[in-house]
Amino acid sequence: MALVNEHFLKLPGNYLFADIAKRVNVFRTTRRQAGLISLGIGDVTQPLCPAVIEAMHRACDEMGTDEGFRGYGPEQGYDFLREAILKNDFLPRGIHLDIDEVFINDGAKSDTGNIQELIRWDNSVGVTDPIYPVYLDSNAMIGRAGTKDDEGRWSNVVYLPCTAENGFVPALPDRRVDVIYLCYPNNPTGTVLTKDELRKWVNYALKNDTLIFFDAAYEAYIQNPDIPHSIYEIRGARKCAIEFHSYSKTAGFTGVRCGYTIVPKDLTAATLQGERIPLNPLWLRRQSTKFNGTSYLSQRAAEAIYTPEGKSQVKETIAYYMQNASRLLDTLRGLGLEVYGGENAPYVWMRTPDGVSSWQFFEQMLYGAQVVCTPGVGFGPSGEGYVRFTAFGSHEQTEEAIERIEKWMKR
Amino acid sequence: MALVNEHFLKLPGNYLFADIAKRVNVFRTTRRQAGLISLGIGDVTQPLCPAVIEAMHRACDEMGTDEGFRGYGPEQGYDFLREAILKNDFLPRGIHLDIDEVFINDGAKSDTGNIQELIRWDNSVGVTDPIYPVYLDSNAMIGRAGTKDDEGRWSNVVYLPCTAENGFVPALPDRRVDVIYLCYPNNPTGTVLTKDELRKWVNYALKNDTLIFFDAAYEAYIQNPDIPHSIYEIRGARKCAIEFHSYSKTAGFTGVRCGYTIVPKDLTAATLQGERIPLNPLWLRRQSTKFNGTSYLSQRAAEAIYTPEGKSQVKETIAYYMQNASRLLDTLRGLGLEVYGGENAPYVWMRTPDGVSSWQFFEQMLYGAQVVCTPGVGFGPSGEGYVRFTAFGSHEQTEEAIERIEKWMKR
Repeated sequence: MALVNEHFLKLPGNYLFADIAKRVNVFRTTRRQAGLISLGIGDVTQPLCPAVIEAMHRACDEMGTDEGFRGYGPEQGYDFLREAILKNDFLPRGIHLDIDEVFINDGAKSDTGNIQELIRWDNSVGVTDPIYPVYLDSNAMIGRAGTKDDEGRWSNVVYLPCTAENGFVPALPDRRVDVIYLCYPNNPTGTVLTKDELRKWVNYALKNDTLIFFDAAYEAYIQNPDIPHSIYEIRGARKCAIEFHSYSKTAGFTGVRCGYTIVPKDLTAATLQGERIPLNPLWLRRQSTKFNGTSYLSQRAAEAIYTPEGKSQVKETIAYYMQNASRLLDTLRGLGLEVYGGENAPYVWMRTPDGVSSWQFFEQMLYGAQVVCTPGVGFGPSGEGYVRFTAFGSHEQTEEAIERIEKWMKR
Repeated sequence: MALVNEHFLKLPGNYLFADIAKRVNVFRTTRRQAGLISLGIGDVTQPLCPAVIEAMHRACDEMGTDEGFRGYGPEQGYDFLREAILKNDFLPRGIHLDIDEVFINDGAKSDTGNIQELIRWDNSVGVTDPIYPVYLDSNAMIGRAGTKDDEGRWSNVVYLPCTAENGFVPALPDRRVDVIYLCYPNNPTGTVLTKDELRKWVNYALKNDTLIFFDAAYEAYIQNPDIPHSIYEIRGARKCAIEFHSYSKTAGFTGVRCGYTIVPKDLTAATLQGERIPLNPLWLRRQSTKFNGTSYLSQRAAEAIYTPEGKSQVKETIAYYMQNASRLLDTLRGLGLEVYGGENAPYVWMRTPDGVSSWQFFEQMLYGAQVVCTPGVGFGPSGEGYVRFTAFGSHEQTEEAIERIEKWMKR
């Protein structure tokens, strides 16, 4: 008899954003108004930049000719892109990586979800809370997270609250954890860690033989020159950290699918007998068995981001979104609300007024202002009482949303 | 202490084709001859057809405009493609599927590797032997395959030999197995199953509550109208089978990355308590947690295959490759060799002469004729004493390879 993986049955039925979509659809079918504005799911809206479009056209043309056609690429990605990454994202920050420490992915979601395959099913997991749901759901699916209590807490997970009370700086765990997920600039709170704060984590990891899964998907939004873009800016990190990057937010690639993961060759995990096993070849084995590389066109598209034109065009779009973030911050603050993030990240994190719950506020604003946000509790227990706004709308939509929120709040 | 997933350490160090590439490189560096011809890895060589190229250009243009830009697509794929699949690949064969039974993937390798996540780690696994290595390696990585003996056999796997002796028709297992992998047209042997033979498997599965993972990646190469293209042509299959499709071989998409997986809503697996759990929503949950859809451009490219122009262009390329298969079959047969497959599949499976081993023949032909094949034993114990040739070369390269093999063999 084929037996189901019962760990799946412990998961909440829906992925957070599917849940939101459902509620939005209920709204849409009961109120036949046009003009709902979503500042909910963190999806980009601005077209791909010209340098990327040109590169994709060129790659299309190649694929239609005998000489230019490309079949299977290397599972770990093409060298042209891996070299561009080393040269542009790491060398200027004084980080020297080997090309085979770079693995091209089809977006950070896949790799942050799959990376847990490398470790034993019974390792303990630590997460900052609130957090991107994929980290925990992917551990839950293999049984590593344990069981879920009524408040949505997994039994084998150590939660590190990030709230207004601690300035969104997580305290080091009070016990040993085997692996820890960090995401900075943070999704969903939009907050960042200074180099000193991040150094504490690297030192904790080195001392406790903890593996850090560092999600840097939003690093392109950092404005303050003192904030680290990569965990490898911290000495010792290549002995304890895997880092995930994505072009989804950097260059609007949510529909194009490309990013990369760094697995340093110095990084090891232990067998039960205490033997140290390098994780770089294990990840290569995983990827060459269960992945066939991301589309050639997507890799050429990503390469174009590193040309002088690409760089300046991408920067422009980021500035465009950051203007939204700044407008949202100012307006919500002007309304007397407590808001965080939004300065080095495309997310604004807001405490709900009068202590209403996240979902309650979500519904109130949906029906009152026809604006969609993301309920903070969807990102974990410490997200209760907060909501997330994204800066990824167009200026027009964001301004319209701001106007509606103001009108609704002042009513 | 972060503990490694020790199941990875039981795997052979290299994926088969990485192993081949290494030996080829050794050859290349020791003999500085040009003109090595590979009929090894099953990778296409002919350019994408014009209908696909046009569709990709159009999709590029869309992505560069405000109105046309697309961010995240649905994780299960765009409806435009799912509808084209239902209408073209299934309805004409009398198979009625719902749109939410179709999941667009980034190639069959990912999904055939990931599908095992849905079942308990201790389910027993059956495979025809020889077989595509991903099926077993992906099970080994989670510990389901057990341990590997000296002959490369996993302890928890039931092997169903397919050899010249049984006409490459696997016998039903002599015991119950929980899940079974079938691939028809078969990789690597190039052989097929008739409807009657496939019906035996569906009946076995229904009787034993066995789950069939059916890989139909090569169905577009079927020439004989009596050979089933989909397991759902067999009554009852939607209660016991998941089917994988890929555009990689159908339309040369090995570098584009797109395919699809069918998970029927009637399909269930049991909990330990005997409750039946539908696998369709579980797969959706898996995909929406660890996958973000394949590139929009790749999905538009796939859609174009179903236009009248696309259909005839794709058919032409398949005929082109099948001409290679037929030439290989004729020549090798003419040389007195035992060859199989190649009539409804792009692979020719050859018994090595004089009982030499697969790897020995691989090396002999590499150094003797500068032609690369794939050693059959790389696909499993029953592949020992065979090698695989692919028909995916250009006519010119294939003819040149044939000439070299003839010359070398007659020496």
